[in-house]
Amino acid sequence: MSPDEALERLGALGFEEPDANVLFDHFEAAERSGRVGHGFGRIEWLETLRGLHPEARPMLVVDESAFERWSGNGALGYLVLEAVVRRQLERPPRHARLVVCDDTFPTGMLGYWTRRLADGGLVALMTATSPRRLPHPAGGAKLTGTNPLSIAVPASHGRPVVTDVSMGTFTYGDVLSGRATEDELVPFGGDHAHKGFALAVGLQLLVDALAPSGGFGAVLLVARPEGDPVPAFRSLAAGARLPGDR
Amino acid sequence: MSPDEALERLGALGFEEPDANVLFDHFEAAERSGRVGHGFGRIEWLETLRGLHPEARPMLVVDESAFERWSGNGALGYLVLEAVVRRQLERPPRHARLVVCDDTFPTGMLGYWTRRLADGGLVALMTATSPRRLPHPAGGAKLTGTNPLSIAVPASHGRPVVTDVSMGTFTYGDVLSGRATEDELVPFGGDHAHKGFALAVGLQLLVDALAPSGGFGAVLLVARPEGDPVPAFRSLAAGARLPGDR
Repeated sequence: MSPDEALERLGALGFEEPDANVLFDHFEAAERSGRVGHGFGRIEWLETLRGLHPEARPMLVVDESAFERWSGNGALGYLVLEAVVRRQLERPPRHARLVVCDDTFPTGMLGYWTRRLADGGLVALMTATSPRRLPHPAGGAKLTGTNPLSIAVPASHGRPVVTDVSMGTFTYGDVLSGRATEDELVPFGGDHAHKGFALAVGLQLLVDALAPSGGFGAVLLVARPEGDPVPAFRSLAAGARLPGDR
Repeated sequence: MSPDEALERLGALGFEEPDANVLFDHFEAAERSGRVGHGFGRIEWLETLRGLHPEARPMLVVDESAFERWSGNGALGYLVLEAVVRRQLERPPRHARLVVCDDTFPTGMLGYWTRRLADGGLVALMTATSPRRLPHPAGGAKLTGTNPLSIAVPASHGRPVVTDVSMGTFTYGDVLSGRATEDELVPFGGDHAHKGFALAVGLQLLVDALAPSGGFGAVLLVARPEGDPVPAFRSLAAGARLPGDR
């Protein structure tokens, strides 16, 4: 799908230009970084969704200095997280803030959101749930989403470090794009798959306990750094490729 | 080492009875749960440490309703986290609180601390740094600690779920207890070791950015749950062993 076609099809879905641009920017960043499962192909997937509400707006339902609770309120998760990220940058926390996003799906590449917070000088940790796709390593029912964890840490000079790890051997985007089958989507770790599974379970229950709509949610911790560890860490790594480097 | 001998040797190191009991309880819980690398053998290791200050007391240096910063102030990390956990239980957050523990080492089994918070009805996420022991999956210098991540979620009935995952194939406790060699201690994940490594890097820089003493630190997020996902999750898992179950 060409960029022009992507924008046109987003418009045809009913998204006004500012929202269509938000979605486009996310998908384009995914294509550029090689995470094609989160790229333009998602527009075809959006076209299959029932109950898309292009006019819906996320709502900030609890607004305290160190805690925010948002509800997607029918808006796509991408648009919720866009609003959340912009607000954190406009109004950074004094020390730290927990931001709980209920009814927030899909959330795309979490590193896209945390990177923008790090580019704005903030430390960010984010996770999000999605449909259950990972079984226990011993088999059985699908119990958790792929539940990525992203951490981004700013740098006084040089690039921030942005990690973004999903707990499956593949992402569901990989399944959508034909790079993997559903059966291959299991907790990562090989001989230590119990570790990938435990991380997925912990993150699943963390989000479900804090954002209990019964839908999907995201949890973001955003904090003001007290130190600047990235430049020294890059020196120690002596040029090795670090997570999030392109 | 027998329990009696353990308590006696802790006393001989100069710890007064309440602190010796805190250390003993942690090591005993480790022995009971099979995490022997965090068990009584750690007393022998403490005996080799220079600059042990059994009289030191952790300090609460920033005390706001949604943010606390502690300094170990020369006290063992176990004693810092004991003070932190007790204070969270006595004074739970309205919504959520970030607790940054600087100069806090060693921290032992993180699940021991988060479980107590979950037993007290709170959601907890904790990580901590330790000496650099994990190299990049491609090799080279040791860049990060094993940097465990523990998440505990309470349950209205039945047991909480407590995950506690270190990012190495083994723990350094396993090396101390002879169960693994230092060379075997690499990021977990097998074919996906870049994921274990990325998690270790993200957690390392998160802690280093928030607790910049240059020593080691711990970061704890503690929150009041809005939902009760654990019982339904256990039903879905149909009796499968979940993380933290004994």
